Amino acid sequence: MVYRHAIKIPFQDIDAAGVVFYAHLFRYAHEAYDAFMADIKQPLVQFLDEGKIILPLVHAEADYHLPLHYADLITLELVVEKIGANHFCLGYRGMNEENICVASIKTVHVTCGAQTKNKMPMPTGLQLALAAYQIDEDKD
Amino acid sequence: MVYRHAIKIPFQDIDAAGVVFYAHLFRYAHEAYDAFMADIKQPLVQFLDEGKIILPLVHAEADYHLPLHYADLITLELVVEKIGANHFCLGYRGMNEENICVASIKTVHVTCGAQTKNKMPMPTGLQLALAAYQIDEDKD
Amino acid sequence: MVYRHAIKIPFQDIDAAGVVFYAHLFRYAHEAYDAFMADIKQPLVQFLDEGKIILPLVHAEADYHLPLHYADLITLELVVEKIGANHFCLGYRGMNEENICVASIKTVHVTCGAQTKNKMPMPTGLQLALAAYQIDEDKD
Amino acid sequence: MVYRHAIKIPFQDIDAAGVVFYAHLFRYAHEAYDAFMADIKQPLVQFLDEGKIILPLVHAEADYHLPLHYADLITLELVVEKIGANHFCLGYRGMNEENICVASIKTVHVTCGAQTKNKMPMPTGLQLALAAYQIDEDKD
Repeated sequence: MVYRHAIKIPFQDIDAAGVVFYAHLFRYAHEAYDAFMADIKQPLVQFLDEGKIILPLVHAEADYHLPLHYADLITLELVVEKIGANHFCLGYRGMNEENICVASIKTVHVTCGAQTKNKMPMPTGLQLALAAYQIDEDKD
Repeated sequence: MVYRHAIKIPFQDIDAAGVVFYAHLFRYAHEAYDAFMADIKQPLVQFLDEGKIILPLVHAEADYHLPLHYADLITLELVVEKIGANHFCLGYRGMNEENICVASIKTVHVTCGAQTKNKMPMPTGLQLALAAYQIDEDKD
Repeated sequence: MVYRHAIKIPFQDIDAAGVVFYAHLFRYAHEAYDAFMADIKQPLVQFLDEGKIILPLVHAEADYHLPLHYADLITLELVVEKIGANHFCLGYRGMNEENICVASIKTVHVTCGAQTKNKMPMPTGLQLALAAYQIDEDKD
Repeated sequence: MVYRHAIKIPFQDIDAAGVVFYAHLFRYAHEAYDAFMADIKQPLVQFLDEGKIILPLVHAEADYHLPLHYADLITLELVVEKIGANHFCLGYRGMNEENICVASIKTVHVTCGAQTKNKMPMPTGLQLALAAYQIDEDKD
């Protein structure tokens, strides 16, 4: 399964070169991640409110294939690339209206105790919820 | 006295019209305010750490006289326009390299109890520190 | 008529005081304005593409009544407060889920020639489109 | 040689988890890159003004080792990791006041014709300017 999140490029996300500033793509990815987590009944706001587990992001990367412009419509396609004992990897592909991939993004999140800040096993509920969107090649 | 804070317009603060997106001016003003407060020995980080008083911003306004572009050098001139019993007003003028005012900004901050969130009298230390930068016409 | 634009407060719009950084409200207002202009068939991207008229923002102000937090749902209610010969004023009220106004915003936009940068009369099409959302008290 | 760029974490760069939102690190890296390019007499604003060459960023990645908080002082250490025929790779290490690396970042930039958008050979001037900051292990 793939989770889809639509973005219309905002007026203020352009840079001096006239295209979307690259770091905004990570913001769009995080908004897709946020919406995805709410959709799979693991809302980030609930993790924060409960104060038991935090999910810090430890790695992020992006490849930029085509520049983006104001008012472009992009669909971020999110999949779960890996579920480990205490981390998970997400992959995002930004697709434009011609269904061309304009950017590929990966983020890695770890599960830590909110107090200890040390890694802790991923809760089963989170693991199962993520698994529905896991792509085959990385299943282990 | 006037507090001066220099800004070089960042690459990523431009919008689809090719000029600085207007809301960034408020960010620059807040960075000037933050530096000013540290300079007058009332650092915002200390208010947050102590957890007794908060200084929420209740009003902000700006007039834009000239567009700003990438790599422009701007000096924000900050003055204290008013010191009330439980609020203070700051004024900022953004001056370009020709010493022309490109934007005028005002912000109003209130002093509240960190727990109660109700207005409380401004601490004397803050009042005295601000007074050194108060402009004559609003002194009361 | 009132134009409504929904916002869910993003994870990354929080500041060191734990609430939404005030300048983001102007960004939300601009996103509402952008969506509104598209809705009334006056899309900003078309003004940019045509290159005849620009609509620079010359004034912005906001009053903040209640702090906003991550994942809060806000509806921005946009009305046209004034339509002048070469400017228009927009008013926005940010309403939370209890229908309490958390912030009030105003922006003033002028109509200028894209080349000359001088004020020019507002196109009739824009004037008529805005008029449908004009509130009574400011009609002239 | 290493180019150093100091950052004080701004008030508004915090997220709902109380730490710096990860994508801001890329913004800080870009500000270091911008300052570096000006320092080596290859200012980005000049490339934009001349309109011959563009330097689009095609890849970015970051590893996050420690969370950052409001008012933290960070020094970004920038080195040139690779200079290719029509691309260059930059590496950045964010060092805190205890000289601990809080984040590692890499960016890859290509040299393209401003009109064609196709890759073109890196100008000799840029190549030589970058070479002064190239680390040994990647020299070729």
